[in-house]
Amino acid sequence: MAWTREQRYQDYSNYSETLIDGLEKQADTSRYKPKFHISPKSGLLNDPNGFSFFDGQWHVFYQAFPFGPVHGLKSWVHCTSDDLVHWHNLGVALPAGDRYDLHGAYSGSAQVIGDRLFLMYTGNVRTQDWQRKSYQNGAWMDKDNQVTKVTKPLIEQPAYVTDHFRDPQLLKVNHEYYALIGAQDKQTLQGEMSLFQSSDLKTWHDRGYVKHNLNNLGYMVECPNLIDVDNKKVLIFCPQGLPQNELATANIYPNVYAISDHFDFEQNIFQADSNKMVQLDDGFDVYASQAFNAPDGSAYLISWIGLPEITYPTDQENWAHCLSLVKQLKIIDGKLYQKPVAAMAKLRDNEQILPKKERVLVENAGQQYELKLTLGANQIGNLLLASDGTTEHALQLKFDTTEGYLLVDRANVGEKFATEFGEQRQIGLTPNKSLTLDIFVDHSVCEIFVNGGQKVMTLRYFAENTHTTIAFSNEEIRDYSGQYFTLQDM
Amino acid sequence: MAWTREQRYQDYSNYSETLIDGLEKQADTSRYKPKFHISPKSGLLNDPNGFSFFDGQWHVFYQAFPFGPVHGLKSWVHCTSDDLVHWHNLGVALPAGDRYDLHGAYSGSAQVIGDRLFLMYTGNVRTQDWQRKSYQNGAWMDKDNQVTKVTKPLIEQPAYVTDHFRDPQLLKVNHEYYALIGAQDKQTLQGEMSLFQSSDLKTWHDRGYVKHNLNNLGYMVECPNLIDVDNKKVLIFCPQGLPQNELATANIYPNVYAISDHFDFEQNIFQADSNKMVQLDDGFDVYASQAFNAPDGSAYLISWIGLPEITYPTDQENWAHCLSLVKQLKIIDGKLYQKPVAAMAKLRDNEQILPKKERVLVENAGQQYELKLTLGANQIGNLLLASDGTTEHALQLKFDTTEGYLLVDRANVGEKFATEFGEQRQIGLTPNKSLTLDIFVDHSVCEIFVNGGQKVMTLRYFAENTHTTIAFSNEEIRDYSGQYFTLQDM
Repeated sequence: MAWTREQRYQDYSNYSETLIDGLEKQADTSRYKPKFHISPKSGLLNDPNGFSFFDGQWHVFYQAFPFGPVHGLKSWVHCTSDDLVHWHNLGVALPAGDRYDLHGAYSGSAQVIGDRLFLMYTGNVRTQDWQRKSYQNGAWMDKDNQVTKVTKPLIEQPAYVTDHFRDPQLLKVNHEYYALIGAQDKQTLQGEMSLFQSSDLKTWHDRGYVKHNLNNLGYMVECPNLIDVDNKKVLIFCPQGLPQNELATANIYPNVYAISDHFDFEQNIFQADSNKMVQLDDGFDVYASQAFNAPDGSAYLISWIGLPEITYPTDQENWAHCLSLVKQLKIIDGKLYQKPVAAMAKLRDNEQILPKKERVLVENAGQQYELKLTLGANQIGNLLLASDGTTEHALQLKFDTTEGYLLVDRANVGEKFATEFGEQRQIGLTPNKSLTLDIFVDHSVCEIFVNGGQKVMTLRYFAENTHTTIAFSNEEIRDYSGQYFTLQDM
Repeated sequence: MAWTREQRYQDYSNYSETLIDGLEKQADTSRYKPKFHISPKSGLLNDPNGFSFFDGQWHVFYQAFPFGPVHGLKSWVHCTSDDLVHWHNLGVALPAGDRYDLHGAYSGSAQVIGDRLFLMYTGNVRTQDWQRKSYQNGAWMDKDNQVTKVTKPLIEQPAYVTDHFRDPQLLKVNHEYYALIGAQDKQTLQGEMSLFQSSDLKTWHDRGYVKHNLNNLGYMVECPNLIDVDNKKVLIFCPQGLPQNELATANIYPNVYAISDHFDFEQNIFQADSNKMVQLDDGFDVYASQAFNAPDGSAYLISWIGLPEITYPTDQENWAHCLSLVKQLKIIDGKLYQKPVAAMAKLRDNEQILPKKERVLVENAGQQYELKLTLGANQIGNLLLASDGTTEHALQLKFDTTEGYLLVDRANVGEKFATEFGEQRQIGLTPNKSLTLDIFVDHSVCEIFVNGGQKVMTLRYFAENTHTTIAFSNEEIRDYSGQYFTLQDM
């Protein structure tokens, strides 16, 4: 189905209940639908928004176009959780269509202020000749989850940026509010991050671009997040248009991070420990990650598992994408670690200790499981997931703990997509060291946490549901141990 | 060995004969040294230059720093051939070190003018504070291969470009001369191609940037070539700093082409058939290709097999890189084809028809051969080159003519390098069609011509020289046929 502009941006009330029911049933019956990841009831999901802890609950919203697998009039859909694992979808919380978000309530963040949650987001407005205007708007959510929009924009687009000006992260620092906003400079057409400051959330002062020592932010920065992690300041963002010589990545757009000792709000300076940014996820499909600091200071991250401008197989089923598990951030030896939250263990059902010295580890692993595997030093092999026991139908994890690398190959696992960006992703490991993998599989989602979260490789795949064997490709791997858990629906 | 700036740019006369002899011996005895590809006698080779037909012979020069595997004071080294296959290295023809090429005689091209060959090249000059100045210089080569430099630069750097202004291609069109020069605009810092015009090679008129409909030329264009191929105009160039969403490539810098019906020299416009450029080579290691039209109108291309800023294993042996085979260009169904020149058959020594229904095709294939292989439709398998018969030591060519793809994997073939840019490269093929491969292996070079030159995948690899088996990884491939030829030294 081709969507016209009129169809994409029409009011939600134009869609019939019957249509929505049909779409939800179609998504529900998809064999690819994740069961313990947030996914859309229907239509398209993209960026996580407003990730927060408020009124005794965890909240996350997501960018949604509920009527098809396309970018149309976006709203925020609201999900809540008591444990960062079991999420409840409460439907659209922040609808678009008002004067300052007429063509979309785009991405943003949240802060608890008093007894309400303040949402700061980008209002997307198109003029009659389809020129974009970007407003940074506010909205209040009370304890009954009722959302009231602030009538006027908080921040209008400064004259020196293009209409690519979005994704405000609202920060509270020493009784002052700051908004960190992705921007494109009008003159240089380069990516920037704008900082605005306010003492009352009403009057905002333009503090200009963040001054930094990073080499190159491409032509646009999306989804900037500044986050406290173990006494470091971590800047997580999506620079669009980086060349390979700046950041070697096969993904269409990367999600990256940089670490610093502090962010100088006085001078508006972020001096990173290195002027080279690092990929946040070494898999295929992570973008637009959002992080926040919980009241106890812990840092949590959730990602969109999906990339812009790529057609995924479920588009055919009129729904698309999901969010990642919630990952807790840590700094260990100056490096960013991402671990699945400890409460993920609550989903565990049956446990099996992996058999010793077998090629086949789990004959019929099903579609929802966690696999924890430790491979000894000097092991060279190929771990097959979602397989029929052969490499011909398998998601392949090729490891070599002698040379030190892990390569994920999705070339032979079901329906092909995004092949022009390559079907392999690879990370280097310390040679001659054992390797631990903590792998979460949920129908069409696979998240691989390497060496306690030192690296994460996230991907979608779309395999036959009869292919559920976990095995090594040959008999030679002997030095391993691990566990397999079936996981319940969230 | 760390090279200081002083060492890199000192006069060649400071290097002793003994040192040069030693370097040449070291390169000569390297098991990785190609025998039918142009490679440096010692030190570093990069871009091909001045590719031409003059005085009854083919000529190509290459950028050379003869004293180590580093970028230092570059000169042009001269090679000649009677057949585009057997090349003779005549040593340095265009040395650097004069006033307008004090720090390098950088890349350029050649045209036959009267009874001499005119070389146009970039003179690299550094000021006392190491600021770069780029001059476009001229030199005449007579029939005795004597080169005389034109005393003054032909073209000085215009005020509106940065010092990245180089690699002139000299064209002769309707009794006028044109120079197409890679440039970076000073204001936008974007890649451009400058056109200059002259009727006498002395007075040059700045025609400004080429106007084009290509989306994005990155931050710099290197090595532009405009070439006539079967009544089309093909623009071959190296745009540096393209993002993945513009051109999906894992290489640090790409070499690309775009096709048009004509180049409008009157208006200085290149209107390409598509605003998306295409990768010239889908392998790992092609850059800085140079093309020219022979007197009969045929279009020939030769490439640097090497990429900037990457450490190759032979750096340890004090030499680096080689040139590709000469490829003849054709347009078939609007697409650019690259075929090894027909005269390559002259190098063939022994021919073997490949055995039928065997896993092992050639037990001990040696280091210099051509393999022609046709795989039937609906064949899924893995062709191993430079192997011990297993996938654990092999350059792997994974093919699937059902789905339609070919993947080249160099992860398991000898010494690792450039792994951060991925160890696999993949191309799509028409599904359910047979696949023909014409593969040239020369010690550490592999050039794979796919389906008669529709695609080319070029790579270096550095394997054990005992690993020379050609085999399929399993017994199942039955529908194939082909020939294997040992190849002589050139």
